[in-house]
Amino acid sequence: MSHRGWWFKREDGHTHSLEEAEEFELLDDVLQYPSSRSMDKRPAYEEGTTIDWLREEAAERERKRVLRSRRGFRGLVALVLDSTSMWLVIILTGIGIGIAGAWLDILVQWLGDLREGRCSHGFFYNQVTCCVGVNQGEICAEWETWSEFLHVKTIFVQSLLQSTVYTALAIIFAGSSAILVKSYAPYAFHTGIPEIKAILNGYVLDAFFSPWTLLIKALGLALAVASGLSLGKEGPLVHVSCCLAYLLSRIFKQFHNNEAQKRKMLIAAAVAGVSVAFGSPLGGVLFGLEELDTFSNGSDVMWRGFVVSVIAAMSLQYIDPFGTGKLVLFEVTQVTTVWRAFELIPWLFLAVIGGLLGSLLIKLNAAIAVYRHNSILRQWPLLEVVGISAITAAVSYLVVFLRVQSSELVANLFLDCDASTDYHGLCNPTAISANVFLLILTALIKVALTSWTFGMMVPAGIFLPTIAIGACLGRAVGLITQGLHRAYPTAWIFSSCPPDPTMRCISPGFYAVIGASAMLGGVTRMTISLVVIVFELTGALSHVLPIMISVMVSKWVGDAFGKEGIYSIWIAMRQYPWLPSVEFRDQGQTAADLMKPADHLVVIHDDGDGCTLLELGEFLETHKFHGFPVVYGDQLVGYVTRDRLRAAVEPLLAEDKSSGAPRRCTFLVLPGASDSELVNLSTMLEEAVLQLRKEMPLELVVSMFQKLNLRQVLLSQGGQLTGLITKTDIVGLFTAEFPYTAALSESHQ
Amino acid sequence: MSHRGWWFKREDGHTHSLEEAEEFELLDDVLQYPSSRSMDKRPAYEEGTTIDWLREEAAERERKRVLRSRRGFRGLVALVLDSTSMWLVIILTGIGIGIAGAWLDILVQWLGDLREGRCSHGFFYNQVTCCVGVNQGEICAEWETWSEFLHVKTIFVQSLLQSTVYTALAIIFAGSSAILVKSYAPYAFHTGIPEIKAILNGYVLDAFFSPWTLLIKALGLALAVASGLSLGKEGPLVHVSCCLAYLLSRIFKQFHNNEAQKRKMLIAAAVAGVSVAFGSPLGGVLFGLEELDTFSNGSDVMWRGFVVSVIAAMSLQYIDPFGTGKLVLFEVTQVTTVWRAFELIPWLFLAVIGGLLGSLLIKLNAAIAVYRHNSILRQWPLLEVVGISAITAAVSYLVVFLRVQSSELVANLFLDCDASTDYHGLCNPTAISANVFLLILTALIKVALTSWTFGMMVPAGIFLPTIAIGACLGRAVGLITQGLHRAYPTAWIFSSCPPDPTMRCISPGFYAVIGASAMLGGVTRMTISLVVIVFELTGALSHVLPIMISVMVSKWVGDAFGKEGIYSIWIAMRQYPWLPSVEFRDQGQTAADLMKPADHLVVIHDDGDGCTLLELGEFLETHKFHGFPVVYGDQLVGYVTRDRLRAAVEPLLAEDKSSGAPRRCTFLVLPGASDSELVNLSTMLEEAVLQLRKEMPLELVVSMFQKLNLRQVLLSQGGQLTGLITKTDIVGLFTAEFPYTAALSESHQ
Repeated sequence: MSHRGWWFKREDGHTHSLEEAEEFELLDDVLQYPSSRSMDKRPAYEEGTTIDWLREEAAERERKRVLRSRRGFRGLVALVLDSTSMWLVIILTGIGIGIAGAWLDILVQWLGDLREGRCSHGFFYNQVTCCVGVNQGEICAEWETWSEFLHVKTIFVQSLLQSTVYTALAIIFAGSSAILVKSYAPYAFHTGIPEIKAILNGYVLDAFFSPWTLLIKALGLALAVASGLSLGKEGPLVHVSCCLAYLLSRIFKQFHNNEAQKRKMLIAAAVAGVSVAFGSPLGGVLFGLEELDTFSNGSDVMWRGFVVSVIAAMSLQYIDPFGTGKLVLFEVTQVTTVWRAFELIPWLFLAVIGGLLGSLLIKLNAAIAVYRHNSILRQWPLLEVVGISAITAAVSYLVVFLRVQSSELVANLFLDCDASTDYHGLCNPTAISANVFLLILTALIKVALTSWTFGMMVPAGIFLPTIAIGACLGRAVGLITQGLHRAYPTAWIFSSCPPDPTMRCISPGFYAVIGASAMLGGVTRMTISLVVIVFELTGALSHVLPIMISVMVSKWVGDAFGKEGIYSIWIAMRQYPWLPSVEFRDQGQTAADLMKPADHLVVIHDDGDGCTLLELGEFLETHKFHGFPVVYGDQLVGYVTRDRLRAAVEPLLAEDKSSGAPRRCTFLVLPGASDSELVNLSTMLEEAVLQLRKEMPLELVVSMFQKLNLRQVLLSQGGQLTGLITKTDIVGLFTAEFPYTAALSESHQ
Repeated sequence: MSHRGWWFKREDGHTHSLEEAEEFELLDDVLQYPSSRSMDKRPAYEEGTTIDWLREEAAERERKRVLRSRRGFRGLVALVLDSTSMWLVIILTGIGIGIAGAWLDILVQWLGDLREGRCSHGFFYNQVTCCVGVNQGEICAEWETWSEFLHVKTIFVQSLLQSTVYTALAIIFAGSSAILVKSYAPYAFHTGIPEIKAILNGYVLDAFFSPWTLLIKALGLALAVASGLSLGKEGPLVHVSCCLAYLLSRIFKQFHNNEAQKRKMLIAAAVAGVSVAFGSPLGGVLFGLEELDTFSNGSDVMWRGFVVSVIAAMSLQYIDPFGTGKLVLFEVTQVTTVWRAFELIPWLFLAVIGGLLGSLLIKLNAAIAVYRHNSILRQWPLLEVVGISAITAAVSYLVVFLRVQSSELVANLFLDCDASTDYHGLCNPTAISANVFLLILTALIKVALTSWTFGMMVPAGIFLPTIAIGACLGRAVGLITQGLHRAYPTAWIFSSCPPDPTMRCISPGFYAVIGASAMLGGVTRMTISLVVIVFELTGALSHVLPIMISVMVSKWVGDAFGKEGIYSIWIAMRQYPWLPSVEFRDQGQTAADLMKPADHLVVIHDDGDGCTLLELGEFLETHKFHGFPVVYGDQLVGYVTRDRLRAAVEPLLAEDKSSGAPRRCTFLVLPGASDSELVNLSTMLEEAVLQLRKEMPLELVVSMFQKLNLRQVLLSQGGQLTGLITKTDIVGLFTAEFPYTAALSESHQ
């Protein structure tokens, strides 16, 4: 290799550590090279890399410019199509996920009811539709339990049969879900929220939204929920919504290569998913803003999320899977619309418990995930699912509150007692201690089961089980408070209650809502979006203050045991390059302390005479880094990414080979140089790479990475390259002290 | 001036245009120089300048470092105090604004009732507290109208007396409010939201939060609202809250010189203000996020806003000024909790009307503001207020819906008809056309009055009048729809209504809510925060979808007639350096097209030999720019701000004068130079000034300014300075095409 005209420099000795640091950014050599010679054709990102938002924005700008420059009718049509395609995709996604969510609900209900019996009208009716027309209080003869269907008369055989069918179907449902996930779409397991957070932050993982994932996640989710495992449908539905949007976006070329546009569309899809999952259009938008960290994307993104959220909720309401005509899932009957100051004491207690138990759940879940990863269980995911579902079914059949679906349990715990409702004796004033014991037992079993279930080889959301745990505890505290009030109606503390002891003062149903919000706050560490979702779930708007207070306190308590919510923990465990939006404070370090110094970098030196394309090709084969700084003399000229350079050089090389005349190339446009003979690669230089000084405080560098969503910055001084900082380095700053950082990262392909 | 060792360069010919461009960034030569010689003492920003967030963050970092380095018990105490002071300030602000808001409500109610009569129990009771204990339906003998009090018997004299007192008190209230504002605190006029938006974005205007402004705004607001002028208390209350927080923050040194910290505190205060103004803790947080553009400040800011919002609402609820025990101001009695698809037609109609009328209101208001500014009215603000309040009172006395306070009108329009309520015959089914006419008339009068009132020399909010206009129109449409249903109960379109025509199908009260949201959407162009505020105002949670749809459509319609809400228009008219967070798309321009080129800039050239302090002092006297790039040879060394440099040089100069030995100084630390004799100014260089290449696309530059909240960037190439771009230049890009840009800017001191 001639070192005169052009030379590549690399100081050895640090190669290994560098490549480790860029672990998820290595390329896999499966690039599809574009056949055209066009210089501005950009190759797609590799799976596992991180996108550069500045570069994507630059590409989008270029695309728009080209589009506008087209003339005539076809140009106009292309322009109109282009500007409507984003809206078209997200509107269709909204409608689609509304319908999908509604059908999923219906499917789950039918599968769930199948575990208890069948409808004599027809196999495909669930219990509610089967019993339509039967008045409340009457017995619905059309719905037969399995023992009625098989005409079993002995009570012992009856319960044996019922429990066997119940457990067997649970195992079959959970098992088939796991088989589907394992065989067809491994990405369909778990909730999907951590991955979506990472992807929206710039991680590239297109396989995560494949059509197979869409199908398997939706089907597997229905099976998993119906099996009675301790999991919810909320997170996975967000994933399904993103898959759907991704599939629809394939129609339009503008999304193919533009990762920034793709992400803007995915944000809207995720919002629609939440909107449908909770029947909470406003909560969806806020979830997008708060939990998916899209604060910095400006008002356009929020506005699109707002619109798609409305559309998704309308489409869900149009289908109306529960036949109530309402979006509110778990309605709180507000018998007492006024709350009293003394109630803040039990509510604060609940908030503290929620924070503690939430932290415990996170820690347990992480420990189990690490154990699963390092133990023999890793080889036997199906067996694990079958085992856990058997245990869950057996336990659930024994504890009355666990036998029904979690959503039904929560709905009943949120309901206050009145003449017509008495859910499993919850309203029996003489059985308070038994009920409290049962509720606390249910909560504890749920904590254990959920910590294990969330992370198995099935689609699983964490929201509903968390709500159920919180609702049980809240109802228990509510029952205790109510009992105290009944026992001591004249006590000083109850003096604000109506004097007539038969009048209702304490509403245990609302205590369940408080418990659920506190528990959710402890597990997810969300704030505003959580409060809005709880409102929209329950309709308890007049009690906005207690809900906000409980979320606030439980977050405070939880934060004392670790700042991160469950999604962040999973992101750290799988080591995705996700940058949290929290403030970073350095201890006086500067960019120089974090950077890879210039003499450890692989740099392209160009002295203006050019080098042969062959040399460049060899260079690109040797070094697999994401990109290379280009230097002229001691001056930094720019930055060029490997994949872009390679896509340009390969066809040129092929031409050279066929023509037999090897050409030279350069990145410089020097005045006076005979540039006709050199291939000009200067258009390959990234226009959007930031250069900073190495004395810049680390805090500032981190804040720039967070706000501008950068992939890397070059550090330079007086035009000379001094170093390079990548997003990986910055992410490392945040996750360095997590106990479980990277604990699962090898398993991630 | 020796041009050897150090020289200053300025190419002339562009001086004038440059100074024009930096209009609001010129310094006023009233700096208080710190007596200490400490180099890192930073002078305060001048009024009218723009802060540099990066610099402020750097200063905060330095302050924290110094604090941490202190030893012993005193050091520990200082550290704890420092970290709690932010929380202390905002918690106290929350409590304070809750109390202030409640007392303001009570004061307004008393003053308002005074226009009709007095309480025989005592002068200081308002009508409601005067009549406590009187059952509904009974006549309250304790409350005497003025004619009863003066024992006037003739009906004609009675009504003459009543209307005279009504109008006279209106004029007296409005007039005193205007006198207070004009004489003591000119900044207390108007809503305050545009200024707060600009200040949070980086504009420096400390006088806007002076204790006098706090007092006058609160008092003047009560008087203005009570006078019956077409204005609301919401926006001004946000301003009052910010003033309160600013006053409290004066206790703690950490806020004195740190503009970034101050702004983080002000965001929380503004959130508390909204929380109290609307009784809407969640809406407050979202208002902060959406309308005050604090999206980019990360989750810490949001979390603080959340907490303070809860505290403010709790303190308001504790005082409970309306005696209802609820935060919900205008409760919607939801007789029909289910809405029908056909109702979307009138609602969409309302949304379109809201968008159109909102745009009209904005344009009218801007045109009147410009007219006021350029006409004789400018010299006679008091006369204007008196005149308008006289007209308002006279018109209001004639139109029955206008006579009461807007808040009472809105509360009644939102209420559905039932047996006990019949507000001015609104529920009379035979008087539909008369009611519709009256409602539309009321709305139109309100539009005219509001466009004029919003911008006069009194504290005035735009929210409540807008809600009132929308509610009138909505109720009118509701009445028409209800009338149609009563007339044609069997029509195809009403087939989803209950078959029994006496059963309620259409709820005109909810139509008023839809009208109000649509109108608010048209005027403010807010989305999510608006929906949340409407919920929390009305409690109409089950109708989330129609409210969202109406806001969405009215924003779409409004945006077709101009993208900006009323606050943005006022910001543009007063030419505040406020950068909207909307996406900017260039037409292929680069930074080079916007920058001031290097040879038009005043630059400090330093060749390492230093210059005398005297020369530097003279230089600083001559050039009033915000700061200067420092250059060594052809290499850019850094950037130094004028005020910081000046604060350092002045005491040195004084020393020189007393010692009689003039010293030389340098910004460079060159190896080998005999630096002992030179005063080292290198610590003066800003560490946090960005350098970009001039080829960078303009879009990217704008997005960096938006996201990092920069004050300026330097453009350089290979270490050489090529130009400078300031925030002013960027703001100009956005406001260039507004019709009213800078129309009011001279009036702004």
